[in-house]
Amino acid sequence: MYDIAIVGSGPAGISAAINAKIRNKSVIIFGNDELSHKVEISREINNYVGFPNITGVELNNAFRSHLENLEIKITPKRITGVYKMKDKFTLLANRESYEAKCVILALGAETVKPITNERELLGKGVSYCATCDGMFYRDREIAVFCDNESMFEEVEYLAGIAKKVYLCAGFDVKTSVENVEILPSKIAGIIGEKKVEAVTLKDGRRIEVDGVFFLKQAVSADVLLFGLKTENGLITVDRKMQTNIDGCFAAGDCTGTPYQIAKAVGEGNIAAHSAFAYLAK
Amino acid sequence: MYDIAIVGSGPAGISAAINAKIRNKSVIIFGNDELSHKVEISREINNYVGFPNITGVELNNAFRSHLENLEIKITPKRITGVYKMKDKFTLLANRESYEAKCVILALGAETVKPITNERELLGKGVSYCATCDGMFYRDREIAVFCDNESMFEEVEYLAGIAKKVYLCAGFDVKTSVENVEILPSKIAGIIGEKKVEAVTLKDGRRIEVDGVFFLKQAVSADVLLFGLKTENGLITVDRKMQTNIDGCFAAGDCTGTPYQIAKAVGEGNIAAHSAFAYLAK
Repeated sequence: MYDIAIVGSGPAGISAAINAKIRNKSVIIFGNDELSHKVEISREINNYVGFPNITGVELNNAFRSHLENLEIKITPKRITGVYKMKDKFTLLANRESYEAKCVILALGAETVKPITNERELLGKGVSYCATCDGMFYRDREIAVFCDNESMFEEVEYLAGIAKKVYLCAGFDVKTSVENVEILPSKIAGIIGEKKVEAVTLKDGRRIEVDGVFFLKQAVSADVLLFGLKTENGLITVDRKMQTNIDGCFAAGDCTGTPYQIAKAVGEGNIAAHSAFAYLAK
Repeated sequence: MYDIAIVGSGPAGISAAINAKIRNKSVIIFGNDELSHKVEISREINNYVGFPNITGVELNNAFRSHLENLEIKITPKRITGVYKMKDKFTLLANRESYEAKCVILALGAETVKPITNERELLGKGVSYCATCDGMFYRDREIAVFCDNESMFEEVEYLAGIAKKVYLCAGFDVKTSVENVEILPSKIAGIIGEKKVEAVTLKDGRRIEVDGVFFLKQAVSADVLLFGLKTENGLITVDRKMQTNIDGCFAAGDCTGTPYQIAKAVGEGNIAAHSAFAYLAK
């Protein structure tokens, strides 16, 4: 059981983790080695105070050094669900689960709006986790949305179980797996009442499936944590970075504009301090 | 007429200034060469992301280099009043005045609550500016509160005009000026209805005076800008760092806890972006 679990390894998550570590809290931070893709690909950053004319790669390296200096390691897991229990949170990453007394969401701005019925049919044919739910679709037909090449092996894993995989990918797919059919258009919505029956595509086509997997880097915030208050996909917070769920804080781009490194770092700091106050109660 | 005037040269003010400069706004930032005394005297700072284990002096120097890199100069003036006109602001520093379309207050946390009647008798015997109002007290008796040695020459200036100066100082005073009497206790309140009649000291004494000068590094925010909404001396802002006064934003310690460099830098960034939106209207 950790004191604080942080979801996201961009500037907001890093800032929260650093503050937590300094205050001797047990902390786990989920993300990836690149820390923040958005920072990494920035050509030049001029307005993070103290680093004039720095490249994204250089700034990310400075952030990485700071983490190393405090012996903070990123846990390279994609969190697909956060569940509030009585006085703790459970975080799921594939079949592993983690527990923490409070949570800081630093998801970035890629948290997009869910498509039609995505939220309503979650657990009723909609899944974010191939490892967890793949086995339910042996010899059945499924649609898979995958926005990141790094998750392609999860697609192949699903293809090894299912009879057929209709794949909507956010990148060029080169696969020799026979039962994977690349969809010519994006998934527009899901059809079904009690369970998934089909997906509709942007070109108007309808494809009968038993399940839909979303293998996304970023899961829509209110899908990630049921009941979380959002507006246009952005998490609603107050000046202390508290969300509507007690013990859950948010920081950085996922809370709204301006999408700035300095804002994210500042909010990560505030969220950490609010978490300390929450833990002290 | 500047696009943006920034009051305060700590992390919040610097962050706002850097963003304004990058966005090609005309900007003036009031403060002092030390930038932030609070940062300067910090022995070690561990949680400003990107700079592990840095001293306050080193971090302040990094901030200074960033300002120099963008050719931003600090205007070393103490702002004693901000006045909202129809669609602009006038800022007073002694007898000089500056105009700006919008204002960012980055005053720090030393904005203390005013003492009894300080606000009520402003302009009726209470003054923050020796140069502006000193001449009104020729051959009269005044009380002077001075919290910073760097302003001691203003005390001597007043002593050259007034018959007697009762001085309450926040530092060890060594003066040979005959008509300056060091008060043994702090000023607790001001007495008077239509104008200043006397000051009361913490030890209970009452001293008859015609005027009271507050020569403070930091002026209470709601005294600085009449009508500004504050709570316990802290400026009330929303998530966009907007105050209750249109075109006036605030950032950093003056908006509340946590008193952290990262928070101040983040809020300065947000305030600047809100100012850009205001200017675009």
